[in-house]
Formats: sequence, structure tokens, C-alpha cells
Amino acid sequence: MANSRFQYVKKFELSDALLPDTYLVARLDGHRFTKFTAEHGFTKPNDERGLLLMAECARQVMSEWSDLVMAFGQSDEFSFLLPASSPLYGRRSAKLSTSFVSLFSSSFVFFWPKHFPDTPLLYPPNFDARIVSYPSAQHVRDYFSWRQADCHINNLYNTCFWALVADGVSKQDAQVALKGTTSGDKNELLFSRFDTNYNEIPQRFRKGTTLFRARPTAVAAPPPPPPPETPLRQPS
Amino acid sequence: MANSRFQYVKKFELSDALLPDTYLVARLDGHRFTKFTAEHGFTKPNDERGLLLMAECARQVMSEWSDLVMAFGQSDEFSFLLPASSPLYGRRSAKLSTSFVSLFSSSFVFFWPKHFPDTPLLYPPNFDARIVSYPSAQHVRDYFSWRQADCHINNLYNTCFWALVADGVSKQDAQVALKGTTSGDKNELLFSRFDTNYNEIPQRFRKGTTLFRARPTAVAAPPPPPPPETPLRQPS
Amino acid sequence: MANSRFQYVKKFELSDALLPDTYLVARLDGHRFTKFTAEHGFTKPNDERGLLLMAECARQVMSEWSDLVMAFGQSDEFSFLLPASSPLYGRRSAKLSTSFVSLFSSSFVFFWPKHFPDTPLLYPPNFDARIVSYPSAQHVRDYFSWRQADCHINNLYNTCFWALVADGVSKQDAQVALKGTTSGDKNELLFSRFDTNYNEIPQRFRKGTTLFRARPTAVAAPPPPPPPETPLRQPS
Amino acid sequence: MANSRFQYVKKFELSDALLPDTYLVARLDGHRFTKFTAEHGFTKPNDERGLLLMAECARQVMSEWSDLVMAFGQSDEFSFLLPASSPLYGRRSAKLSTSFVSLFSSSFVFFWPKHFPDTPLLYPPNFDARIVSYPSAQHVRDYFSWRQADCHINNLYNTCFWALVADGVSKQDAQVALKGTTSGDKNELLFSRFDTNYNEIPQRFRKGTTLFRARPTAVAAPPPPPPPETPLRQPS
Repeated sequence: MANSRFQYVKKFELSDALLPDTYLVARLDGHRFTKFTAEHGFTKPNDERGLLLMAECARQVMSEWSDLVMAFGQSDEFSFLLPASSPLYGRRSAKLSTSFVSLFSSSFVFFWPKHFPDTPLLYPPNFDARIVSYPSAQHVRDYFSWRQADCHINNLYNTCFWALVADGVSKQDAQVALKGTTSGDKNELLFSRFDTNYNEIPQRFRKGTTLFRARPTAVAAPPPPPPPETPLRQPS
Repeated sequence: MANSRFQYVKKFELSDALLPDTYLVARLDGHRFTKFTAEHGFTKPNDERGLLLMAECARQVMSEWSDLVMAFGQSDEFSFLLPASSPLYGRRSAKLSTSFVSLFSSSFVFFWPKHFPDTPLLYPPNFDARIVSYPSAQHVRDYFSWRQADCHINNLYNTCFWALVADGVSKQDAQVALKGTTSGDKNELLFSRFDTNYNEIPQRFRKGTTLFRARPTAVAAPPPPPPPETPLRQPS
Repeated sequence: MANSRFQYVKKFELSDALLPDTYLVARLDGHRFTKFTAEHGFTKPNDERGLLLMAECARQVMSEWSDLVMAFGQSDEFSFLLPASSPLYGRRSAKLSTSFVSLFSSSFVFFWPKHFPDTPLLYPPNFDARIVSYPSAQHVRDYFSWRQADCHINNLYNTCFWALVADGVSKQDAQVALKGTTSGDKNELLFSRFDTNYNEIPQRFRKGTTLFRARPTAVAAPPPPPPPETPLRQPS
Repeated sequence: MANSRFQYVKKFELSDALLPDTYLVARLDGHRFTKFTAEHGFTKPNDERGLLLMAECARQVMSEWSDLVMAFGQSDEFSFLLPASSPLYGRRSAKLSTSFVSLFSSSFVFFWPKHFPDTPLLYPPNFDARIVSYPSAQHVRDYFSWRQADCHINNLYNTCFWALVADGVSKQDAQVALKGTTSGDKNELLFSRFDTNYNEIPQRFRKGTTLFRARPTAVAAPPPPPPPETPLRQPS
């Protein structure tokens, strides 16, 4: 057949299977989202519509691949967890990461009008993704702690920064004012100057969004305790 | 900082850089597109709207990354070529494949209404992608020949199959009728029974869609013109 | 400098670092040792001199790299264990496997005359090696169980086979006689026909050779129990 | 069978096949050879016995694997070339690099007494190895130019250094005297102070040792003839 003479090029596709019995975490990140959010008028420091849209995309991804047991998102990123035992797509790294990021990206455009009914989408956005193997449950726990700590630190800073800017401080001066401050300093600043108790800011902003599968079909033992988000869906 | 204690998890991100000075080809494939096209009423064997939408998504990808010099698409797949010298994203495999597939996927939904004004999109579709290194220009040429031969073979078969079905033959009988036939047999069938000269069927259906960057050195130039349908080479 | 113009070739050396916090097992295997042992008059089914030589080579390897905590050998193979925390050579796969196999191979020739004082070495032998990552202590335990079971199964078979051959049975007939026999059958054969209690055969032949570092500097301790399933945790 | 319950550990052995149709170069390097050569009384800056021993080890490796078409050595390193088309061991990286380094290492001890009849080998030495893929013949040419330029630069420096030391200069002063000197300076120093024409120093010292297979197509042919010392190309 005409095809067969060229088919040898398939042999250049090398295996990229990930190590068995390791937890797989796929993290998706928005590409140039500072620009994207500015051009689409996202509110600062947090845009609830945007966060709900991101969560809906993540839910779509978890609905498509039932092996995914949990997801955590904040800002323009979302991480998905596959249990160590998952055989999905032969654990091929590219197959997994590209499938997840593809559906997340198409969902972002698909669900945009629902969350931004008054804001036309100017152009299609894009994300990148990577998959990382973690040998133990402790690594996975620390991974999500890392992303959640990142959320907290950035949100506390951004809350202060945009409060100062809203109060008439220039962006440059706000940056200078916050430089070197501790978490305690920032909490105090919010309380004394802006009458804001940081702990009363919505959990979604302070702690990110966690999705988990209600009954992971005996994959992962007791599911993690109440995250800010509601369960993805009832097991059928 | 709270973050730093967990940051060690970053060291599990292993390098996936592709071999320098090799041509990189990223191929995107639709996931369950037989079902998707049926549910969205695509015409058989070819839906011009769908092919033009795919081409527009590919153009969007080529516009975003000026390193991409060429793309070839057929059916629900599209392949993109990076020259051997490209330093894009440090040639990291996951970064490249996920970025390309993400923008392609979001573009698919974004441009859907333009090409399917009367057909609402029922759900977000998804694609997967893989990147392959090819050491020489000959390999790249054979790669695209392989995809184009695949286009030709499938299209000739599908043209016969759907002509028989349109003529009242059951799908099963059509399959039996075509089993073991040569290209010559199929051309003859189309001509004698359906008065169709296969070579007069639109090139886009027979040979796929090729995009190339007009002046590959002037990477900042205006986006490429409307997709010229330039066959890479004749299927033999 | 004359050198610098060519130095770009170094960039083709891609990273091959192994996943952090996984146990690393390097297995070395003799190349064409059936031929080698025949040509050097090894006794069948076991040659104690050969096994002691192998063990001495392994000891040399463990002496050179103090990160190695354990080794297990049988027949013409030896496996070495690095603890999950080992940073040796940046955990680069090729650096580790080639260093271990190189010293093992040079040691084999170096210590040959000590163990085979009356048998000149006819030519230098060679081994290959591979390194495998294991995520948990249980995997490592099962790995060594696998190699030890292999030792047992082969030794029981070979003990019967060579007893038959020594008794005047042709090699072909011996093979036929043993085909499909269970462990029990083989034990019975040895006992009833050769008056041999298999369990009284030297342990080294039946169970292989295990080396371990006397005080692994708090690296390994007794293998931990199966990892408890720990839920991810409350977001703080 | 007892074995089968543990056999699952084999699935952790991931593929490490190298890209097809690329040239493969394996480079072996001595481990702590500064110490090794000092302890075994190698002459400085070059020890002809040592270089001939290295060449004999390389010849042994080339005799064992007929796919190897060329080798280049200098100092305590040797590089081996596999043609792009070689299917040896399925092009598995670890299998290739460990096999080559193993035979080289055992040969080093095996042939030691022939080249160092009056110097007992105090302990077994070891080497490491890596394999690199090169897409084109030009890369391979530049690779060997790189190693040969390295040979030239080091040898010119070392020749000056040890001439100064032999002349009563302290090692520290010799280092200072050579710091920042050009090739021309060093040639002049050798000529004016030591009456030495650098170009009359043996080629083996200045240009390294190159082995090549006499008829690379007739891979099953008899082992290659005694190592012709053919410089690859002039250092520029």
C-alpha cells in the first residue's frame, strides 16, 4: 500500500510511559494570563467569575476521566491527581497531559458565556501542562500544600496591594510599602487601615478551589476532608 | 516562608528536552471524533465546514508561535513542524505539545460559530498530541507523505463507501463490496456506477490541507494568507 | 580556543536523572556466561569458586560506593540497592550503572587468580547493567524476592538435571524427564534416586548471596511496613 | 510458580531506546585516574604503555561488537561510534553503554600485565560511560574534532608544564608561568628553552589514537588489524 513505504516514521515515536505505582499530578497553567485578564476586565485581586469558570473547566475534565480523583486550582492554574494505580492511557505522559489540557482549554471557551455573559471573549486563550510522578502519598500531600501555600501568599499580598491602589496609592508606592512585610504585617495593615479581617475574605480566594470525587471507587482510601468546593458528582 | 518547606516537590519535575538539531513534528488527533461528528451532523465522507474550522485552528496556532513553519491536516488530525534549529521553550516536549494542543482546542470552540452558524456546539471536544523528533529533512518529508497517503487512502475508501450507502446499499454490504478492492477498482466503481471522476473531487478532500509560513525567516510578518491548498506531493 | 567551536556537541547530552525519593536497583548480568563457564571448566550445577568470585566483585563495588546498602547475587548476576534518599552522581542513570558495572568487571579479572589459581582466564568477560526505580520499600522487597525465587527455581532444576547427567542420562533425556515436574517431584527425585536432601545443599546455592552494609548510617533500617493510606489533609 | 507473584517488578523497567537513524557515540572516562596513574608510576605528561593499553582495550571492544565502526581515545577516555543505522541491542541506551564499559574495564585488567610487565596492578580501576545521539555526520565529525582538540590543548599544556617541572621549577610556579599563554607562546617556550619542536613529539601524544574498522560494510569480517594510528584530522 502507498502508505506502508512511509510508515517507518512511526518508529521515531519513543515511549514516554511514567513510572508505575507512582501518583501522577498534572498541572495546567494559563499562558500570558496577566494580559488576558486585563484585556477581559477581570476584577482585582480576585475575579469570582473567572475562578468559577476555571472550576467548571476542571469539573469537565474530571467528568471525562473517572481516574482523576482530585483537583486543586488557584489563580490561572489547576492541578489534577491520578492515583498511583491508574492505568489510564498506559500512563503515557504526553497522552495524559495533552488530553487534560485540551479539554480544559476547549471548556474554557465553551463555558465562558455562562460565567461572563456581558464580556465577549476576544480570542482563544491557551494553557500549558506538565505531568509529574510522586512516589508516596506524603509527596502528593506536600505538592498540594505547596500550591495552596502559594495561593495564600499571593492572595494576601494581592489583597493588600489592590486595597492600597484602590485607596489612591500608586502601584509603585504600594509595591514599596509591602516590600519585606511579614504575613502579620499584612494582616495588620488590612485590619487597621482597611477595616478588613483577612480571615473573613471568601475561602475560595484564600485557599483555592478543591474538587474531589465522592467515592473514588476504592482507589485512595478516605477522601480528603471538606474542601471549599462541593463534590464533583454523585458516584453513579 | 510557608511555601518553601513544600517547594522540594519541584525537584520531581524531570527534564524532557528533545534532542537538539532535530526536526520536531507535533501531531494533534481528535478524541472520539466519530461520535462527535455524528452528533453534530457532519456531512459524509467530508464536511467542508469542519475542514475549514480545523484549518482555522491550525492557522491560529501558527500565528501564535512563529517558529512553526508548516502544518498539514486531514480528517480530525493536524501536524505542525518546527525546524531543527528552533529553541522554542527550550525544546521541552510537554511544554510544546500541551501549548499547541491547548490553543488548537480553545480555537476550535472559539471559531465554531463562524463555520457552523446553524449548529450549536453540544459540548467541548478534545484532542491529544505527541511530539516526535526527526533527524533529517528526508524523515520529515516522509512523515508528511505518510499522513497525506493516509488521507488519500481513507478518502478514496470513504467516498466509495458513502456513495454506496447513499445509493441504498446497507453499511454492512458496502463494507463487503469494498473489501480487498484496489485503488483502481475503487476509481472504476466511482466512475462506472456513480459517474464520478475521483480526480475532480476537491483537492482539500483528496490531499488534505497544508499551511506554510510565507516567508519563514520574516517570522514577525503578518499572519499567513488564507490556507492555500498546496499538496505536499502527489500520493503515489 | 580551538576547542570551543566544537563544544556545542555537549548540548546533545540529555539529562537522564532518575526520579527522586525512589529506591534504585542496579542489576548486572553476565554476557554469554554459559559459554564462558564451559570454556573455563566451571563445575555444574554450581561452582563455588565462581560464586565467591562474584561475591568478592560485589564487595568491591559496595566498598567503593558507600551509598550502596545491599546486594544480592546468584548465578551470573548481581543486584545492588541504593536507598531512596541517595544523591549519588545526581542520580544520573548512566553514570550509576556504568560505574558499577565497570568496577565489577575489572574486579572479576583482578580477583580471578585468587579464586581460580589453577585456571588461566582465557579472555576478559563482560556484563551489562540496568537501573530501575522503585517507589516503595515493598517493591524493593518483592524485587529481591523475585531474584531469590529465580535462584531457587533454577537451582532445583539444575541440581536434578546435572545429577541425572552424572548418572549417565543424556542431556536430552534429562530435559524430558524433568519437563512438567513440580518442586515436590524434583525434591522426591533427588531424595529417592540420589539420596540427596535438597535442603542440605549449601545455602549459597539454594538462596544466593546477600551482602549488606553493617551500619548503613541510619539509611535503611528494617524495611518499613506497608505504607498506611493517609488522606491528603485539611486545608489549613 | 513462586516466581510469578514477584514478577510484576519487571514492569518498572522503562524503555530507554535511543532515537532511530541517529549516530550513537559512547564515551568512556576513567574514574580518579589522576590518582590511579600516580599510584602506578605513569610517566608524565604521557605514558606510552598506558596509551597502548587503552588502545588494546578499545580494540577488544570493537572486536566484540562489529557494529562499532570507529573509536578515538586520548588520556583516560575513549569514544566509540555506532552508525545511524545500527540496530544493536534495540538501541537501548543502558544495554549499550554498560556492555561497552564492562568489556573495556575487564580488558584493562586482563591486558595490564602485557603493557606493564614490571608494575603490579594495585586495585581494579573503573570507568563511566555515556551515550549520546547525533543527528548528522557533521555532528559526529565535530564531536571527534572536539575530543581531538581537547587532546591537543591538554597535551601542549602538559608538555610545557612537565618540562618546567623537570627543569626544577615548582609545580605552582609552572602553573603561574603558563597562565594566559597562547599556543604560540607554548610552542616558543618548548623550542627556545627546551630545544623541543612540538610537532616532532609522537603523534599519539599530540593527536590521540583512532581506530577504525577496515571495511565497515563487511561487519562479519575478521577482527580489525593492529590499530593504525590515524589522526582523525589536524587540530586547527
